[in-house]
Amino acid sequence: MRTSNDTPADGSAPASIVALSGGVGAARFLSGLVQETGSDPVVAVVNTGDDREFYGVHVSPDIDIVTYTLAGVVDRKLGYGLARDTFSLMERLAELGHESWFRLGDRDFANCLHRTLRLREGDGLAKVAEQIRRAYGVQAHVLPMSQEPCPTLVELTDGRKIHFEEYLVRERAPDQVRSVDLSAAGRATPAPGVIEAIRAAAVILVCPSNPVVSIGPILAIPGIRDALRTSAAPVVAVSPIVGGSPIKGPASQLLRGIGAEVSALGVARLYRDFISGFVFDECDAELESAIGELGLATRTTDSIMRDRAGAARLARCALELARDLR
Amino acid sequence: MRTSNDTPADGSAPASIVALSGGVGAARFLSGLVQETGSDPVVAVVNTGDDREFYGVHVSPDIDIVTYTLAGVVDRKLGYGLARDTFSLMERLAELGHESWFRLGDRDFANCLHRTLRLREGDGLAKVAEQIRRAYGVQAHVLPMSQEPCPTLVELTDGRKIHFEEYLVRERAPDQVRSVDLSAAGRATPAPGVIEAIRAAAVILVCPSNPVVSIGPILAIPGIRDALRTSAAPVVAVSPIVGGSPIKGPASQLLRGIGAEVSALGVARLYRDFISGFVFDECDAELESAIGELGLATRTTDSIMRDRAGAARLARCALELARDLR
Repeated sequence: MRTSNDTPADGSAPASIVALSGGVGAARFLSGLVQETGSDPVVAVVNTGDDREFYGVHVSPDIDIVTYTLAGVVDRKLGYGLARDTFSLMERLAELGHESWFRLGDRDFANCLHRTLRLREGDGLAKVAEQIRRAYGVQAHVLPMSQEPCPTLVELTDGRKIHFEEYLVRERAPDQVRSVDLSAAGRATPAPGVIEAIRAAAVILVCPSNPVVSIGPILAIPGIRDALRTSAAPVVAVSPIVGGSPIKGPASQLLRGIGAEVSALGVARLYRDFISGFVFDECDAELESAIGELGLATRTTDSIMRDRAGAARLARCALELARDLR
Repeated sequence: MRTSNDTPADGSAPASIVALSGGVGAARFLSGLVQETGSDPVVAVVNTGDDREFYGVHVSPDIDIVTYTLAGVVDRKLGYGLARDTFSLMERLAELGHESWFRLGDRDFANCLHRTLRLREGDGLAKVAEQIRRAYGVQAHVLPMSQEPCPTLVELTDGRKIHFEEYLVRERAPDQVRSVDLSAAGRATPAPGVIEAIRAAAVILVCPSNPVVSIGPILAIPGIRDALRTSAAPVVAVSPIVGGSPIKGPASQLLRGIGAEVSALGVARLYRDFISGFVFDECDAELESAIGELGLATRTTDSIMRDRAGAARLARCALELARDLR
């Protein structure tokens, strides 16, 4: 699509589309988005609150899911990891007594090792993400929200405060969530290019990701939410909640944990200060007036991304709403 | 075998056999040795001059070759690495532009990663080697010569001074060797247990390893050569040179590089100050009087270890000579 902000006729930069992104849901949406945007550059600003060192290497779960999905090399069944990867390293580490609840394939590990070695040499997370997406031939820019450590912590009702990946993978996302701690993101600075990309964007989208632990950390970084609020571009969010529950993942527990309603309306309320449009599933059509009363333009569609065509349809719906909001 | 130093009848410690060890040749010899020694403990004191960081992990080539060979999991064709390992990690690192001349399989890498993580936690190389050999069910003790960095450097006639693994693997062992630099080993201290093992040994053997870059670094560590010289136990070396050339590896270039003769006699001269017996190939029988004139007891045999039986035969020959020297 083209918006009023770009000037393609004179050969200058085309209209860029910035998408705030978490993991699996965002990656599927982005794979639809790049089908719809043609030559307009897509910049995915990706959550790094899930980043953690495992087995001596820096793992960036959401950056890798987005990169692998856009590259077409993701394990489609799992939604993360690389298709046809081997697991020799993990098997041997487990034999040697290491914790192995976070499974990394051998090629997946190699990407994380590459990241680790480059970080040790002084490159930033942004440069490494750029290099890996280029190595896979991914056209979209994959930009970490921050280059600084921003671990998302989940506080459980038993008082333990654990890293999000421990909550999600090791503990299998229990219901007993007291709160979510984004204070590390709250002390971080945006990665180079993030604020600039938001300011230069023709359209800004919020992918159908977990509002608490995927989009939440991005919004918690000082400067990003303000940049979104003051952007001249339309900001359109896509609800990850359909019919009162998430398509995938622990959004219900986490939304309840922060005292929010587990519904498209609940998500719209979390975003209402910086979005102007909201896309949600047609099965939630009864919420349309309540969401409209938040001052948001709305659009409903079949928002379940069963395949690439479904992802493209959802992206097209969000882009059309954004165009109408220009 | 039993020697006068042990007292097996009263249930106290049996006679230990210490073997100074390099990589492939030593590992084969040790696999024969453990067949011949029954319940007497074997302590392999292993060269770590080849150790180097590759791809962010601490690789101990000789320790791993010895451990894998004694565990029966070595890639027999190569003589190093693990049988039926996968190479996904290396392939992906190469795709990302990393040097890949030092190939590490995925399970092999996992062992090195385990070592690296344990070293980072403060364990010493000796404790980690012990742990890995136990994990593989290896009975023999595998003891690094030192826990400190002891890189063996090879100076070429073009003036470059390179790490031994770069010389051997990356540059494929060129003839143009000016000298071998063992100065790092010369500043290191023996690993805990090395001097004690030599002092307590009933028999000390020098495996048929490269005298310059495998046994040389062990001897270069202050205290070890003296402990060998003053040991009450017989010290018997096995020649790695047969008919004027090594069975395998770059011993010719390196012996010439340090100005030594490439023959069993040349090797015997390098060791004469601390050994009392010397085993060499029957095809070199004409060297027997010259080696005897060095003051050494000699024994000749078929020293080519074609299989486990050949390795056991060679080990038996060395043990018999040691017994005669008690």
